[in-house]
Amino acid sequence: MLVLHTWTTPNGKKVPILLEELGLSYEIHFVNIGKDEQFEPEFLAISPNNKVPALVDHGAEGGPLSIFESGAILTYLADKHHKFLAPSGHSRWKSQEWLYWQIGSLGPMLGQLGFFAVRSKEKAPLAIDRFTEECGRLLGVMERRLAKCPYLAGEEYTIADVACYPWMVGATTMLKDALGEHLDKKPAIDRWMQEIGGRPAVQRGMAIKPPAGI
Amino acid sequence: MLVLHTWTTPNGKKVPILLEELGLSYEIHFVNIGKDEQFEPEFLAISPNNKVPALVDHGAEGGPLSIFESGAILTYLADKHHKFLAPSGHSRWKSQEWLYWQIGSLGPMLGQLGFFAVRSKEKAPLAIDRFTEECGRLLGVMERRLAKCPYLAGEEYTIADVACYPWMVGATTMLKDALGEHLDKKPAIDRWMQEIGGRPAVQRGMAIKPPAGI
Repeated sequence: MLVLHTWTTPNGKKVPILLEELGLSYEIHFVNIGKDEQFEPEFLAISPNNKVPALVDHGAEGGPLSIFESGAILTYLADKHHKFLAPSGHSRWKSQEWLYWQIGSLGPMLGQLGFFAVRSKEKAPLAIDRFTEECGRLLGVMERRLAKCPYLAGEEYTIADVACYPWMVGATTMLKDALGEHLDKKPAIDRWMQEIGGRPAVQRGMAIKPPAGI
Repeated sequence: MLVLHTWTTPNGKKVPILLEELGLSYEIHFVNIGKDEQFEPEFLAISPNNKVPALVDHGAEGGPLSIFESGAILTYLADKHHKFLAPSGHSRWKSQEWLYWQIGSLGPMLGQLGFFAVRSKEKAPLAIDRFTEECGRLLGVMERRLAKCPYLAGEEYTIADVACYPWMVGATTMLKDALGEHLDKKPAIDRWMQEIGGRPAVQRGMAIKPPAGI
Protein backbone atom coordinates (compact mmCIF):
# COMPACT_ATOMS: atom_id res chain seq x y z
CA MET A 1 0.00 0.00 0.00
CA LEU A 2 1.22 3.46 -0.96
CA VAL A 3 -0.01 6.41 1.08
CA LEU A 4 0.74 9.85 -0.31
CA HIS A 5 0.53 12.86 2.00
CA THR A 6 0.09 15.86 -0.24
CA TRP A 7 -1.79 19.01 -1.16
CA THR A 8 -2.84 20.75 -4.39
CA THR A 9 0.45 22.66 -4.85
CA PRO A 10 2.89 22.20 -7.77
CA ASN A 11 5.19 20.03 -5.64
CA GLY A 12 2.15 18.21 -4.30
CA LYS A 13 0.91 17.27 -7.79
CA LYS A 14 4.14 15.76 -9.13
CA VAL A 15 3.82 12.45 -7.28
CA PRO A 16 0.12 11.86 -8.17
CA ILE A 17 1.11 12.38 -11.83
CA LEU A 18 3.80 9.70 -11.60
CA LEU A 19 1.57 7.32 -9.63
CA GLU A 20 -1.04 7.67 -12.37
CA GLU A 21 1.59 7.18 -15.11
CA LEU A 22 2.73 4.00 -13.37
CA GLY A 23 -0.84 2.77 -12.95
CA LEU A 24 -0.35 2.15 -9.24
CA SER A 25 -3.07 2.10 -6.65
CA TYR A 26 -2.55 4.54 -3.80
CA GLU A 27 -4.33 6.47 -1.09
CA ILE A 28 -4.05 10.21 -0.74
CA HIS A 29 -4.00 11.82 2.67
CA PHE A 30 -4.60 15.52 2.11
CA VAL A 31 -2.52 17.79 4.34
CA ASN A 32 -4.28 21.15 4.33
CA ILE A 33 -1.45 23.66 4.37
CA GLY A 34 -4.04 26.46 4.54
CA LYS A 35 -4.87 25.09 8.00
CA ASP A 36 -1.21 24.51 8.96
CA GLU A 37 -1.76 20.75 9.11
CA GLN A 38 1.85 20.27 7.95
CA PHE A 39 2.98 21.24 11.45
CA GLU A 40 1.10 18.44 13.21
CA PRO A 41 3.33 15.88 14.97
CA GLU A 42 2.05 12.89 12.93
CA PHE A 43 3.06 14.64 9.72
CA LEU A 44 6.40 15.82 11.13
CA ALA A 45 7.26 12.17 11.86
CA ILE A 46 7.24 11.33 8.14
CA SER A 47 8.17 14.75 6.76
CA PRO A 48 10.75 16.36 9.07
CA ASN A 49 10.84 19.47 6.86
CA ASN A 50 7.07 20.03 7.38
CA LYS A 51 6.40 20.12 3.66
CA VAL A 52 4.27 18.13 1.25
CA PRO A 53 4.61 15.70 -0.40
CA ALA A 54 5.68 12.69 1.63
CA LEU A 55 5.15 9.07 0.65
CA VAL A 56 4.84 6.00 2.84
CA ASP A 57 5.42 2.72 1.02
CA HIS A 58 4.09 0.02 3.33
CA GLY A 59 5.31 -2.63 0.89
CA ALA A 60 8.91 -1.43 0.62
CA GLU A 61 11.75 -3.92 0.79
CA GLY A 62 12.94 -4.08 4.38
CA GLY A 63 9.68 -2.75 5.85
CA PRO A 64 7.60 0.41 5.58
CA LEU A 65 9.56 3.32 4.17
CA SER A 66 8.63 6.98 4.41
CA ILE A 67 10.24 9.45 2.01
CA PHE A 68 9.92 13.21 1.88
CA GLU A 69 11.10 15.58 -0.90
CA SER A 70 9.36 15.23 -4.25
CA GLY A 71 12.61 14.63 -6.17
CA ALA A 72 13.53 11.69 -3.95
CA ILE A 73 9.99 10.25 -4.16
CA LEU A 74 9.88 10.48 -7.97
CA THR A 75 13.28 8.79 -8.25
CA TYR A 76 12.28 6.08 -5.76
CA LEU A 77 9.08 5.20 -7.61
CA ALA A 78 10.68 5.33 -11.06
CA ASP A 79 13.55 3.08 -9.94
CA LYS A 80 11.22 0.66 -8.17
CA HIS A 81 8.96 0.27 -11.21
CA HIS A 82 11.69 0.56 -13.89
CA LYS A 83 9.90 3.28 -15.79
CA PHE A 84 10.41 6.96 -16.67
CA LEU A 85 14.07 6.80 -15.53
CA ALA A 86 16.76 4.62 -17.11
CA PRO A 87 18.49 2.34 -14.57
CA SER A 88 21.96 3.49 -15.68
CA GLY A 89 23.85 5.12 -18.52
CA HIS A 90 23.78 8.58 -20.05
CA SER A 91 20.01 8.86 -20.19
CA ARG A 92 19.68 8.28 -16.43
CA TRP A 93 22.01 11.19 -15.67
CA LYS A 94 20.44 13.53 -18.23
CA SER A 95 17.10 12.96 -16.47
CA GLN A 96 18.67 13.39 -13.02
CA GLU A 97 20.38 16.66 -13.89
CA TRP A 98 17.15 18.20 -15.18
CA LEU A 99 15.23 16.87 -12.18
CA TYR A 100 17.76 18.54 -9.87
CA TRP A 101 17.48 21.69 -11.97
CA GLN A 102 13.74 21.77 -11.28
CA ILE A 103 14.24 21.09 -7.56
CA GLY A 104 17.07 23.56 -7.05
CA SER A 105 16.19 26.36 -9.48
CA LEU A 106 12.88 26.34 -11.36
CA GLY A 107 10.76 25.43 -8.31
CA PRO A 108 12.33 27.68 -5.67
CA MET A 109 12.60 30.68 -8.01
CA LEU A 110 9.01 30.46 -9.31
CA GLY A 111 7.92 29.91 -5.71
CA GLN A 112 9.63 33.12 -4.57
CA LEU A 113 8.23 35.04 -7.54
CA GLY A 114 4.77 33.81 -6.55
CA PHE A 115 5.26 35.16 -3.04
CA PHE A 116 6.76 38.54 -3.86
CA ALA A 117 4.80 39.36 -7.03
CA VAL A 118 1.41 37.80 -6.25
CA ARG A 119 0.76 36.66 -2.66
CA SER A 120 2.47 39.35 -0.59
CA LYS A 121 0.46 42.51 0.00
CA GLU A 122 3.60 44.44 0.85
CA LYS A 123 5.70 44.95 -2.26
CA ALA A 124 9.51 44.77 -2.45
CA PRO A 125 10.52 45.87 -5.98
CA LEU A 126 14.10 44.64 -5.45
CA ALA A 127 12.81 41.10 -4.82
CA ILE A 128 10.18 41.20 -7.58
CA ASP A 129 12.81 42.31 -10.11
CA ARG A 130 15.32 39.72 -8.94
CA PHE A 131 12.96 36.77 -9.17
CA THR A 132 11.30 37.94 -12.40
CA GLU A 133 14.71 38.17 -14.04
CA GLU A 134 15.91 34.82 -12.70
CA CYS A 135 12.68 33.06 -13.73
CA GLY A 136 12.97 34.63 -17.17
CA ARG A 137 16.51 33.29 -17.43
CA LEU A 138 15.35 29.80 -16.37
CA LEU A 139 12.55 29.83 -18.96
CA GLY A 140 15.21 30.66 -21.55
CA VAL A 141 17.29 27.67 -20.38
CA MET A 142 14.25 25.40 -20.68
CA GLU A 143 13.32 26.76 -24.11
CA ARG A 144 16.82 26.14 -25.46
CA ARG A 145 16.78 22.60 -24.11
CA LEU A 146 13.34 21.74 -25.50
CA ALA A 147 14.24 23.26 -28.88
CA LYS A 148 17.02 20.66 -29.08
CA CYS A 149 15.15 17.57 -27.93
CA PRO A 150 11.53 16.55 -27.31
CA TYR A 151 11.90 16.05 -23.54
CA LEU A 152 14.12 17.52 -20.87
CA ALA A 153 16.23 14.36 -20.58
CA GLY A 154 16.46 13.94 -24.37
CA GLU A 155 14.45 11.47 -26.43
CA GLU A 156 12.36 10.00 -23.62
CA TYR A 157 9.64 11.31 -21.32
CA THR A 158 11.01 10.98 -17.77
CA ILE A 159 10.44 12.13 -14.20
CA ALA A 160 12.26 15.37 -15.09
CA ASP A 161 9.26 16.32 -17.26
CA VAL A 162 6.85 15.17 -14.54
CA ALA A 163 8.62 17.42 -12.01
CA CYS A 164 8.62 20.52 -14.22
CA TYR A 165 5.08 20.31 -15.57
CA PRO A 166 3.00 21.46 -12.54
CA TRP A 167 5.44 24.35 -11.99
CA MET A 168 5.13 25.40 -15.63
CA VAL A 169 1.35 25.33 -15.34
CA GLY A 170 1.75 27.72 -12.40
CA ALA A 171 4.16 29.89 -14.40
CA THR A 172 1.75 30.21 -17.31
CA THR A 173 -1.37 30.85 -15.20
CA MET A 174 -0.86 32.32 -11.72
CA LEU A 175 2.44 33.97 -12.72
CA LYS A 176 1.44 34.97 -16.27
CA ASP A 177 1.25 38.69 -15.49
CA ALA A 178 4.36 38.66 -13.32
CA LEU A 179 6.43 36.91 -16.00
CA GLY A 180 4.99 39.01 -18.84
CA GLU A 181 7.19 38.99 -21.92
CA HIS A 182 9.39 36.23 -20.52
CA LEU A 183 6.63 33.83 -21.56
CA ASP A 184 6.53 35.18 -25.14
CA LYS A 185 8.14 33.36 -28.05
CA LYS A 186 8.70 30.07 -26.34
CA PRO A 187 7.55 27.67 -29.09
CA ALA A 188 9.45 24.68 -27.70
CA ILE A 189 8.00 25.13 -24.21
CA ASP A 190 4.51 25.63 -25.74
CA ARG A 191 4.84 22.38 -27.72
CA TRP A 192 6.08 20.51 -24.64
CA MET A 193 3.28 21.93 -22.42
CA GLN A 194 0.69 20.81 -24.99
CA GLU A 195 2.11 17.33 -25.20
CA ILE A 196 2.69 16.72 -21.49
CA GLY A 197 -0.63 18.33 -20.59
CA GLY A 198 -2.39 16.05 -23.08
CA ARG A 199 -1.34 12.85 -21.31
CA PRO A 200 -4.33 11.35 -19.50
CA ALA A 201 -2.22 10.36 -16.46
CA VAL A 202 -0.94 13.93 -16.16
CA GLN A 203 -4.50 15.24 -16.33
CA ARG A 204 -5.58 12.83 -13.58
CA GLY A 205 -2.60 13.73 -11.38
CA MET A 206 -3.17 17.46 -11.83
CA ALA A 207 -6.84 17.07 -10.91
CA ILE A 208 -6.38 15.74 -7.36
CA LYS A 209 -8.83 17.44 -5.00
CA PRO A 210 -9.44 17.05 -1.30
CA PRO A 211 -12.89 15.80 -0.36
CA ALA A 212 -15.35 18.46 0.80
CA GLY A 213 -14.71 19.69 4.34
CA ILE A 214 -10.94 19.14 4.36
CA MET B 1 39.81 11.41 -16.77
CA LEU B 2 37.46 13.53 -14.70
CA VAL B 3 37.34 17.25 -15.43
CA LEU B 4 35.44 19.39 -12.94
CA HIS B 5 34.33 22.87 -13.96
CA THR B 6 33.78 24.79 -10.77
CA TRP B 7 34.39 27.85 -8.63
CA THR B 8 34.94 28.54 -4.92
CA THR B 9 31.23 28.76 -4.04
CA PRO B 10 29.34 26.38 -1.68
CA ASN B 11 27.90 24.44 -4.62
CA GLY B 12 31.30 24.53 -6.30
CA LYS B 13 33.04 22.93 -3.32
CA LYS B 14 30.74 19.94 -2.86
CA VAL B 15 32.15 17.92 -5.75
CA PRO B 16 35.84 18.46 -4.86
CA ILE B 17 35.01 17.21 -1.35
CA LEU B 18 33.51 14.00 -2.74
CA LEU B 19 36.32 13.53 -5.27
CA GLU B 20 38.81 13.82 -2.39
CA GLU B 21 36.76 11.41 -0.24
CA LEU B 22 36.78 8.91 -3.09
CA GLY B 23 40.52 9.37 -3.67
CA LEU B 24 40.01 10.01 -7.38
CA SER B 25 42.36 11.93 -9.61
CA TYR B 26 40.74 14.86 -11.39
CA GLU B 27 41.46 18.15 -13.07
CA ILE B 28 39.76 21.36 -12.06
CA HIS B 29 38.86 23.96 -14.63
CA PHE B 30 38.04 27.13 -12.71
CA VAL B 31 35.10 29.09 -14.12
CA ASN B 32 35.46 32.61 -12.74
CA ILE B 33 31.91 33.70 -12.09
CA GLY B 34 33.22 37.10 -11.01
CA LYS B 35 34.27 37.55 -14.66
CA ASP B 36 31.02 36.01 -16.05
CA GLU B 37 32.93 33.06 -17.53
CA GLN B 38 29.88 30.87 -16.89
CA PHE B 39 28.19 32.54 -19.85
CA GLU B 40 30.86 31.51 -22.38
CA PRO B 41 29.64 29.13 -25.11
CA GLU B 42 32.10 26.34 -24.23
CA PHE B 43 30.76 26.26 -20.69
CA LEU B 44 27.12 26.51 -21.81
CA ALA B 45 27.65 23.34 -23.88
CA ILE B 46 28.27 21.29 -20.74
CA SER B 47 26.21 23.35 -18.28
CA PRO B 48 23.05 24.59 -20.02
CA ASN B 49 21.96 26.40 -16.85
CA ASN B 50 25.20 28.47 -16.84
CA LYS B 51 26.06 27.45 -13.31
CA VAL B 52 28.95 25.69 -11.63
CA PRO B 53 29.66 22.90 -11.01
CA ALA B 54 29.67 20.66 -14.08
CA LEU B 55 31.61 17.43 -14.44
CA VAL B 56 32.89 15.72 -17.57
CA ASP B 57 33.73 12.05 -17.11
CA HIS B 58 35.80 11.09 -20.14
CA GLY B 59 35.85 7.50 -18.92
CA ALA B 60 32.08 7.06 -18.52
CA GLU B 61 30.40 3.93 -19.81
CA GLY B 62 29.08 4.65 -23.29
CA GLY B 63 31.48 7.55 -23.93
CA PRO B 64 32.24 10.93 -22.35
CA LEU B 65 29.44 12.14 -20.14
CA SER B 66 28.90 15.70 -18.96
CA ILE B 67 26.66 16.32 -15.95
CA PHE B 68 25.54 19.60 -14.41
CA GLU B 69 23.75 20.17 -11.07
CA SER B 70 25.76 19.29 -7.96
CA GLY B 71 23.12 16.86 -6.65
CA ALA B 72 23.23 14.81 -9.85
CA ILE B 73 27.04 14.85 -9.91
CA LEU B 74 27.34 13.69 -6.28
CA THR B 75 24.85 10.87 -6.89
CA TYR B 76 26.62 9.84 -10.12
CA LEU B 77 30.05 9.64 -8.48
CA ALA B 78 28.78 7.88 -5.34
CA ASP B 79 26.89 5.30 -7.42
CA LYS B 80 29.82 4.76 -9.78
CA HIS B 81 32.28 4.18 -6.93
CA HIS B 82 29.86 2.43 -4.55
CA LYS B 83 30.64 4.73 -1.65
CA PHE B 84 28.82 7.32 0.47
CA LEU B 85 25.41 6.23 -0.91
CA ALA B 86 23.88 2.78 -0.45
CA PRO B 87 22.96 1.11 -3.77
CA SER B 88 19.39 0.40 -2.57
CA GLY B 89 17.24 0.02 0.52
CA HIS B 90 16.12 2.44 3.19
CA SER B 91 19.50 4.04 3.72
CA ARG B 92 19.74 5.04 0.04
CA TRP B 93 16.44 6.92 0.23
CA LYS B 94 17.21 8.58 3.56
CA SER B 95 20.37 9.98 1.97
CA GLN B 96 18.50 11.01 -1.19
CA GLU B 97 15.75 12.85 0.69
CA TRP B 98 18.25 14.92 2.67
CA LEU B 99 20.30 15.59 -0.45
CA TYR B 100 17.16 16.90 -2.17
CA TRP B 101 16.39 18.93 0.95
CA GLN B 102 19.76 20.65 0.62
CA ILE B 103 19.29 21.25 -3.13
CA GLY B 104 15.70 22.47 -2.91
CA SER B 105 15.64 24.30 0.43
CA LEU B 106 18.84 24.85 2.41
CA GLY B 107 20.93 25.98 -0.59
CA PRO B 108 18.42 28.27 -2.34
CA MET B 109 17.22 29.88 0.90
CA LEU B 110 20.73 30.56 2.30
CA GLY B 111 21.67 31.81 -1.17
CA GLN B 112 18.79 34.31 -1.17
CA LEU B 113 19.58 35.41 2.38
CA GLY B 114 23.17 36.03 1.28
CA PHE B 115 21.94 38.23 -1.54
CA PHE B 116 19.35 40.27 0.36
CA ALA B 117 21.10 40.56 3.73
CA VAL B 118 24.74 40.78 2.68
CA ARG B 119 25.51 41.34 -1.00
CA SER B 120 22.76 43.75 -2.08
CA LYS B 121 23.41 47.42 -1.33
CA GLU B 122 19.70 48.20 -1.64
CA LYS B 123 17.79 46.71 1.27
CA ALA B 124 14.35 45.06 1.11
CA PRO B 125 13.28 44.32 4.70
CA LEU B 126 10.40 42.11 3.51
CA ALA B 127 12.86 39.82 1.73
CA ILE B 128 15.46 39.89 4.52
CA ASP B 129 12.81 38.93 7.08
CA ARG B 130 11.36 36.21 4.88
CA PHE B 131 14.69 34.49 4.17
CA THR B 132 16.01 34.93 7.72
CA GLU B 133 12.91 33.25 9.09
CA GLU B 134 12.96 30.44 6.53
CA CYS B 135 16.68 29.79 7.07
CA GLY B 136 16.08 29.75 10.83
CA ARG B 137 13.33 27.19 10.31
CA LEU B 138 15.63 25.05 8.15
CA LEU B 139 18.40 25.16 10.77
CA GLY B 140 15.83 23.93 13.28
CA VAL B 141 14.94 21.03 10.96
CA MET B 142 18.62 20.13 10.63
CA GLU B 143 19.23 20.40 14.38
CA ARG B 144 16.32 18.06 15.15
CA ARG B 145 17.61 15.55 12.60
CA LEU B 146 21.20 15.60 13.84
CA ALA B 147 20.05 15.32 17.46
CA LYS B 148 18.48 11.98 16.49
CA CYS B 149 21.30 10.46 14.44
CA PRO B 150 24.96 11.20 13.76
CA TYR B 151 24.55 12.01 10.06
CA LEU B 152 21.73 13.40 7.94
CA ALA B 153 20.96 10.01 6.36
CA GLY B 154 21.18 8.18 9.71
CA GLU B 155 24.12 6.10 10.88
CA GLU B 156 26.40 6.66 7.88
CA TYR B 157 28.25 9.64 6.43
CA THR B 158 26.84 10.12 2.92
CA ILE B 159 26.67 12.62 0.07
CA ALA B 160 23.83 14.38 1.94
CA ASP B 161 26.40 15.53 4.52
CA VAL B 162 28.86 16.44 1.75
CA ALA B 163 26.19 18.62 0.09
CA CYS B 164 25.20 20.45 3.27
CA TYR B 165 28.64 21.12 4.71
CA PRO B 166 29.89 23.98 2.46
CA TRP B 167 26.52 25.73 2.82
CA MET B 168 26.67 25.40 6.61
CA VAL B 169 30.17 26.88 6.59
CA GLY B 170 28.68 29.83 4.71
CA ALA B 171 25.79 30.03 7.17
CA THR B 172 28.12 30.16 10.17
CA THR B 173 30.61 32.65 8.67
CA MET B 174 29.31 34.96 5.94
CA LEU B 175 25.73 34.77 7.22
CA LYS B 176 26.54 34.71 10.95
CA ASP B 177 25.25 38.23 11.60
CA ALA B 178 22.22 37.83 9.36
CA LEU B 179 21.18 34.58 11.05
CA GLY B 180 21.91 35.88 14.56
CA GLU B 181 20.13 33.92 17.25
CA HIS B 182 19.02 31.25 14.76
CA LEU B 183 22.55 29.87 15.09
CA ASP B 184 22.40 29.74 18.90
CA LYS B 185 21.81 26.53 20.83
CA LYS B 186 22.41 24.14 17.99
CA PRO B 187 24.58 21.52 19.74
CA ALA B 188 23.85 18.77 17.23
CA ILE B 189 24.76 20.97 14.27
CA ASP B 190 27.90 22.16 16.11
CA ARG B 191 28.98 18.55 16.77
CA TRP B 192 28.31 17.60 13.12
CA MET B 193 30.20 20.66 11.80
CA GLN B 194 33.21 19.76 13.96
CA GLU B 195 33.21 16.18 12.79
CA ILE B 196 32.63 16.79 9.07
CA GLY B 197 35.02 19.75 9.08
CA GLY B 198 37.68 17.57 10.68
CA ARG B 199 37.79 15.10 7.80
CA PRO B 200 40.99 15.59 5.79
CA ALA B 201 39.17 15.06 2.46
CA VAL B 202 36.63 17.73 3.38
CA GLN B 203 39.44 20.13 4.28
CA ARG B 204 41.15 19.49 0.93
CA GLY B 205 37.89 19.93 -1.00
CA MET B 206 37.04 23.15 0.82
CA ALA B 207 40.52 24.54 0.09
CA ILE B 208 40.33 24.52 -3.71
CA LYS B 209 41.76 27.75 -5.10
CA PRO B 210 42.20 29.00 -8.65
CA PRO B 211 45.79 29.59 -9.74
CA ALA B 212 46.95 33.22 -9.65
CA GLY B 213 45.64 35.29 -12.52
CA ILE B 214 42.35 33.41 -13.04
